Amino acid sequence: MLELLVDTDTGSDDAVALLLAALNEDTELTAVTTVAGNVPVPLATRNALLTLELAGRGQVPVYQGCERPIVRPLHTATAVHGDDGMGDLGLPEPAGSARPGHAIDVLLDRARSRPGELTLVTLGPLTNLAAAVLRDRALLTRFRHVYCMIGAPDAVGNMSATAEFNAWADPEAAHVVAEAAAPELVTWIGWDVSRRDAVMTPDDQHALRELDTPLAKFTQRINRKVAEWAATVTGLDGYDLPDPVAMAGVLRPDLVIETEPAHVRVALGDEARGQTAPDRRLDAPAANVTLIRRVDGKGFKELLFDTLAKRVEDAP
Amino acid sequence: MLELLVDTDTGSDDAVALLLAALNEDTELTAVTTVAGNVPVPLATRNALLTLELAGRGQVPVYQGCERPIVRPLHTATAVHGDDGMGDLGLPEPAGSARPGHAIDVLLDRARSRPGELTLVTLGPLTNLAAAVLRDRALLTRFRHVYCMIGAPDAVGNMSATAEFNAWADPEAAHVVAEAAAPELVTWIGWDVSRRDAVMTPDDQHALRELDTPLAKFTQRINRKVAEWAATVTGLDGYDLPDPVAMAGVLRPDLVIETEPAHVRVALGDEARGQTAPDRRLDAPAANVTLIRRVDGKGFKELLFDTLAKRVEDAP
Amino acid sequence: MLELLVDTDTGSDDAVALLLAALNEDTELTAVTTVAGNVPVPLATRNALLTLELAGRGQVPVYQGCERPIVRPLHTATAVHGDDGMGDLGLPEPAGSARPGHAIDVLLDRARSRPGELTLVTLGPLTNLAAAVLRDRALLTRFRHVYCMIGAPDAVGNMSATAEFNAWADPEAAHVVAEAAAPELVTWIGWDVSRRDAVMTPDDQHALRELDTPLAKFTQRINRKVAEWAATVTGLDGYDLPDPVAMAGVLRPDLVIETEPAHVRVALGDEARGQTAPDRRLDAPAANVTLIRRVDGKGFKELLFDTLAKRVEDAP
Amino acid sequence: MLELLVDTDTGSDDAVALLLAALNEDTELTAVTTVAGNVPVPLATRNALLTLELAGRGQVPVYQGCERPIVRPLHTATAVHGDDGMGDLGLPEPAGSARPGHAIDVLLDRARSRPGELTLVTLGPLTNLAAAVLRDRALLTRFRHVYCMIGAPDAVGNMSATAEFNAWADPEAAHVVAEAAAPELVTWIGWDVSRRDAVMTPDDQHALRELDTPLAKFTQRINRKVAEWAATVTGLDGYDLPDPVAMAGVLRPDLVIETEPAHVRVALGDEARGQTAPDRRLDAPAANVTLIRRVDGKGFKELLFDTLAKRVEDAP
Ligand SMILES: [Ca+2]
Ligand SMILES: [Ca+2]
Ligand SMILES: [Ca+2]
Ligand SMILES: [Ca+2]
Repeated sequence: MLELLVDTDTGSDDAVALLLAALNEDTELTAVTTVAGNVPVPLATRNALLTLELAGRGQVPVYQGCERPIVRPLHTATAVHGDDGMGDLGLPEPAGSARPGHAIDVLLDRARSRPGELTLVTLGPLTNLAAAVLRDRALLTRFRHVYCMIGAPDAVGNMSATAEFNAWADPEAAHVVAEAAAPELVTWIGWDVSRRDAVMTPDDQHALRELDTPLAKFTQRINRKVAEWAATVTGLDGYDLPDPVAMAGVLRPDLVIETEPAHVRVALGDEARGQTAPDRRLDAPAANVTLIRRVDGKGFKELLFDTLAKRVEDAP
Repeated sequence: MLELLVDTDTGSDDAVALLLAALNEDTELTAVTTVAGNVPVPLATRNALLTLELAGRGQVPVYQGCERPIVRPLHTATAVHGDDGMGDLGLPEPAGSARPGHAIDVLLDRARSRPGELTLVTLGPLTNLAAAVLRDRALLTRFRHVYCMIGAPDAVGNMSATAEFNAWADPEAAHVVAEAAAPELVTWIGWDVSRRDAVMTPDDQHALRELDTPLAKFTQRINRKVAEWAATVTGLDGYDLPDPVAMAGVLRPDLVIETEPAHVRVALGDEARGQTAPDRRLDAPAANVTLIRRVDGKGFKELLFDTLAKRVEDAP
Repeated sequence: MLELLVDTDTGSDDAVALLLAALNEDTELTAVTTVAGNVPVPLATRNALLTLELAGRGQVPVYQGCERPIVRPLHTATAVHGDDGMGDLGLPEPAGSARPGHAIDVLLDRARSRPGELTLVTLGPLTNLAAAVLRDRALLTRFRHVYCMIGAPDAVGNMSATAEFNAWADPEAAHVVAEAAAPELVTWIGWDVSRRDAVMTPDDQHALRELDTPLAKFTQRINRKVAEWAATVTGLDGYDLPDPVAMAGVLRPDLVIETEPAHVRVALGDEARGQTAPDRRLDAPAANVTLIRRVDGKGFKELLFDTLAKRVEDAP
Repeated sequence: MLELLVDTDTGSDDAVALLLAALNEDTELTAVTTVAGNVPVPLATRNALLTLELAGRGQVPVYQGCERPIVRPLHTATAVHGDDGMGDLGLPEPAGSARPGHAIDVLLDRARSRPGELTLVTLGPLTNLAAAVLRDRALLTRFRHVYCMIGAPDAVGNMSATAEFNAWADPEAAHVVAEAAAPELVTWIGWDVSRRDAVMTPDDQHALRELDTPLAKFTQRINRKVAEWAATVTGLDGYDLPDPVAMAGVLRPDLVIETEPAHVRVALGDEARGQTAPDRRLDAPAANVTLIRRVDGKGFKELLFDTLAKRVEDAP
């Protein structure tokens, strides 16, 4: 049984990733922490609560975290995900609310209390995790593994020519985590995988509509703004799902086709802000993270559709 | 009664500042936290303990904090202060040791438990304070006031052409604090004041030797490396005492001659790293810190000599 | 007899400096070259021609130079000097026009043909001079001396917190010149001198109006926009005259009160762009420029008023 | 008949590219200009002369150019190409010497005198060309086409994690050229093509030895240092030939398999210095250069071997 902690700046694709985690039979989603990123952190908290409740997992505790990056001003992605991060559908407010306690403390306390047991998955900027690392420089060693949806190892970015959103949003946080990491402890999955292996093509979107379950409708509707954005900015044949494909790689390691241990230094200056191109020279410093470079796209979509086909009342 | 918390990367001038705080009759030194800076943090802890014990204040709790800056590698100042930060005198080990608990938590907990009561004085890089601010963005408002020895408002630096050590050592931390600050909450006193108003001239050093108390001898001896450094790098007529003159400004506000509310943005890029030159244009952003720009040098030295003349057995 | 070459981005204060040079009896103004800066280069050419003609010096050849900085986009200062750089007075077009030939070639050819004879004074961004240095790395040694109005050695800027316009506008050019310079070849006079020693106070402005000559009226009128800008941005008691006070230091070295040989490295990154704070540490690299730090303000204004009192028909 | 101007920092692969150009029957090599890069510019001049003489083309005029990059210190690549840039073989001195005149002037004058006729190929840092562009912002339009061996469009570098040597060596020059370029005027071919399509494998090296002509021996011997470097730094299966494959794309456009119009902004800050990753977002600025992304490797090697098989006495 995989025991998960998920840290998320819950926008529309985070929500889908939460559904994958919450409804996976071999996984226990032990807690969710939220962070500012796609949306301001109160909205991330609301969206996480709402998604968990929709999945029949309202009992999973949600803890709110940092309201802004370490040194950069908060720059949300509402142009991509909608003002509420969830497609501006006028979704109802969640029944529950965040538990008392700060995400930083939750990361620190849970990892320390169950060393080597918990798997952490981050789906947003690394602010919470980095702040926790500042408090406990060995924190990353206390997890079973840490997976981060972050970066653009091919230097093709969505926030700048070369930088991906989560790394760009809080590059100092990403740098702190990268420096404390080791390839056997930390795995990054970047936007390159999403663009290649997790694009919801018109056919996929049609199939999703056909599925006609509450979760499928939810997924389709909350991503409608992303679909528009994809058409005008990324030029992909549909919207892509970075956080879900990252979560798929965690829940189903058999779907991971290619990995690469790499030395990644996160760029901090304004010119290359958040860039994470690895150093591939023979004389590069030793690898500090493992990169997932390919995921089985077909397998990912099967996992996605199987999950979205579920009925909430099936929830344990 | 001024209730002080002191955060220090205890090198030789921090030690003198601790003596001023520990032996001031109108002040209660409630705790000391340590941070990496002049020396690695275990040495800062050792030096703080040892200094407090010498001052007969071994009961003041010392808590160890961050072992390195937020994103920069640790760069100590042993060339200035000696390998142990205290002039390499072979000082004995302290009798006591650090209390359990991390400096970040001490700053957070004490400020929160006694809102508006405690005065924080930082004498090293702002890593501990910044990490605490990441956890509690309103932290600075929970102190009575925060004083920081940091910066070079005249753009004359000691670590680069324009940057002072504490700001240079952890510019991201200084940036976090500067952004969370307000001129009525936070006062910075820079290296410019030390160079002008707190230089221990040959006459002063002679007078110190004449004093011939244990504390005076200690002060003279631990600063011998700084005296050499001053002769070759700063060109001052003696060694200067940045942390003591900052502490004097806290303990004796009547010694402060000139202040300036200013907008300070800490430079983060490698080129201007740690520079803190204020924006003095009429259309600059609003002031975020108060700068102390002049201290009564004569008064400072009287305070210093009065303190160093004390006998440990005078300690309460 | 001082043989001058003047390179200028002719805005309103450049025009006054040109008057000082053109009408000085001990000086031969051999040529004027223009560069983009305060205004686009065609306007700089027009303003230089027009000013020389007003001074009865229409025969001085004017050569047009670079239309933009080396790597930065052109950012004019029309907010300071008016859209035409001369207070938007609807001044008439000049009778003459620029001579054939590029400013870069003029600098290269004249210096090479009369080694050690010519004094170059630059009043704008250093684009022309730097481009000439790229072609002839020893160019600066071929002048008798090179004076540049540039920089903010006190780190108090007008284009950013710490940078002066000419250095900020083309920092790469300033860097090229600084690197090719030596203190006996190149003297820089910064904005600090202008702010302290060359402010046209209300009394000065009144006296200028009283003078009631064509040149005095011209000077007062073309600087009216600068006067407004000073009131809202610099907070000085009147408009300051950076280029004229620099020219005064060249024409009348006896007015120079304080100089400082200094190591200046021009900042190139976006964060500190164009900053020229010298390195004043004892272990700084060797000085590369001489800085003029103080000029006799009273003497400067006497020179200014004496010049502006002249009648054009007095021109030789 | 292709009329070529070649600008080169003649190291060992530049020499091979010069052989290709000098001995191509459909090409007139009208002049060679040299620039500091792989080696100091006097060595680049010597190596160019020597190579042309070996090819029986001693009559091609060689003009020396800039001795260092615009703002960066000169950083040669002698670790890659040998101290003399040619494998340290103790090659004889050339019989001829550089013609009077500076490379910058040659670029300016020849382009202006025969507008639209000449094809420029640059094989080194873009210092000469950029300095010429500063003098004549429309210079690039005066060539028939400009080809540059420069950059790493896949963000895999040889001088840093992401930057290729020519762009890294003088990023400001590359920036000037990139800004003045247009995709129909300027084509860049990066290190990516060389690594993929122009690696001299052990088999190729064997075949080269078998060829046993003076030019083949010369090629093999001058690249012996590069071969060692490739083994320890790039990890390629042999040494690669960036300048020859670029020249092949010019001489034989039919060998070019894939091009990509792209918006390239050359990074100038220290962190990403010289990086040339294109902006591939749909909303990127308009393309400013055409990138060659693939060359027919087999065709390239046939061209190379055919050329090296020639006897000097075959030279026209
Ligand atoms: Ca996310
Ligand atoms: Ca200190
Ligand atoms: Ca000017
Ligand atoms: Ca080359």
